[in-house]
Amino acid sequence: MARWEPGAYERLRAAALTLFDEQGFEGTTVAQIAERAGLNRRTFFHHFADKREVVFAGQEESEAFIAAEIAAQPAMVDPLHAAVAALQRAAVTMYEKYRGGAELLGRVIAASPELQERELVKRAALAARIAAALRERGTGEPAAVVAAWTAAAVFFAARNRWNQAGNERTLAELMGETLELFLDATLHRAE
Amino acid sequence: MARWEPGAYERLRAAALTLFDEQGFEGTTVAQIAERAGLNRRTFFHHFADKREVVFAGQEESEAFIAAEIAAQPAMVDPLHAAVAALQRAAVTMYEKYRGGAELLGRVIAASPELQERELVKRAALAARIAAALRERGTGEPAAVVAAWTAAAVFFAARNRWNQAGNERTLAELMGETLELFLDATLHRAE
Repeated sequence: MARWEPGAYERLRAAALTLFDEQGFEGTTVAQIAERAGLNRRTFFHHFADKREVVFAGQEESEAFIAAEIAAQPAMVDPLHAAVAALQRAAVTMYEKYRGGAELLGRVIAASPELQERELVKRAALAARIAAALRERGTGEPAAVVAAWTAAAVFFAARNRWNQAGNERTLAELMGETLELFLDATLHRAE
Repeated sequence: MARWEPGAYERLRAAALTLFDEQGFEGTTVAQIAERAGLNRRTFFHHFADKREVVFAGQEESEAFIAAEIAAQPAMVDPLHAAVAALQRAAVTMYEKYRGGAELLGRVIAASPELQERELVKRAALAARIAAALRERGTGEPAAVVAAWTAAAVFFAARNRWNQAGNERTLAELMGETLELFLDATLHRAE
């Protein structure tokens, strides 16, 4: 019965992130997370494959959205701008609503070597998905894979500013600025 | 006595890569590597911290070299070209001589999820070192970190072409071409 309890996903996620922050990711068990949320382990495993997935939930859904947005970009848009525009659409539609928990999430990842390593795996998966979507759109190799890793770097650099305490700018705005600052520096456009 | 045996490092490395290729990275023990090389485990651990380090040996030395080459680039060179030029210098000076074993090494990494994850950690460490060297040279954030990940992507994309069977081009040449193809696509320069 409990596994269909309304709001279980959000309660488990909030309980997990609070515990990771209080006592560390490595030192927190699924049993503790379930107890803090007032639910049981079975309900936890209905929503998450393991405790790492609490931190990185929703990636497959995000990637599919980003690939579709890349495909929808006008043909005249170059691959790097197409990829960043798609990531900005994901920010507006999916990520910005998590702003309230972003600082906590950033702190939890920064404190855990295991989560940082996992984030690198997620970055590589995102880059591979973006590169595939760019190839579908006609970009050749190796330009597609380099544009994909660059777009992912723009995303993570902006995300790391967005989740700082006191930030009031949107993730999409920070991504746009990050891309422009990179291109200005690379192309000497600001000189 | 055996730990100072001449050529031990190269014998252990050759034995390890051959065994990883024959029976998989995960299924190979340090004892087997030492036995194949005609040496003992103690000699192995004199040269390598663990079996993963056989695959990624020399990274700290490479990174220090690359950081110094970035610092030595003329001030007029933009951060992305400065980083790629430094990586090309590393290719000429340090990596090209391993061309003979590159195909085998690429095959071993491609077959092992653990080594692929480790390679992502090494990529992130390389990007962090490049970003720090670019900041020293006056590039601001977030441009430095995006340029660094882009340069790292250029390096890995070129490395993945360089270590294909039948490739006869140098790593430095492939890096230069990869960077130009990315910039052409991004800036519509080829149109």
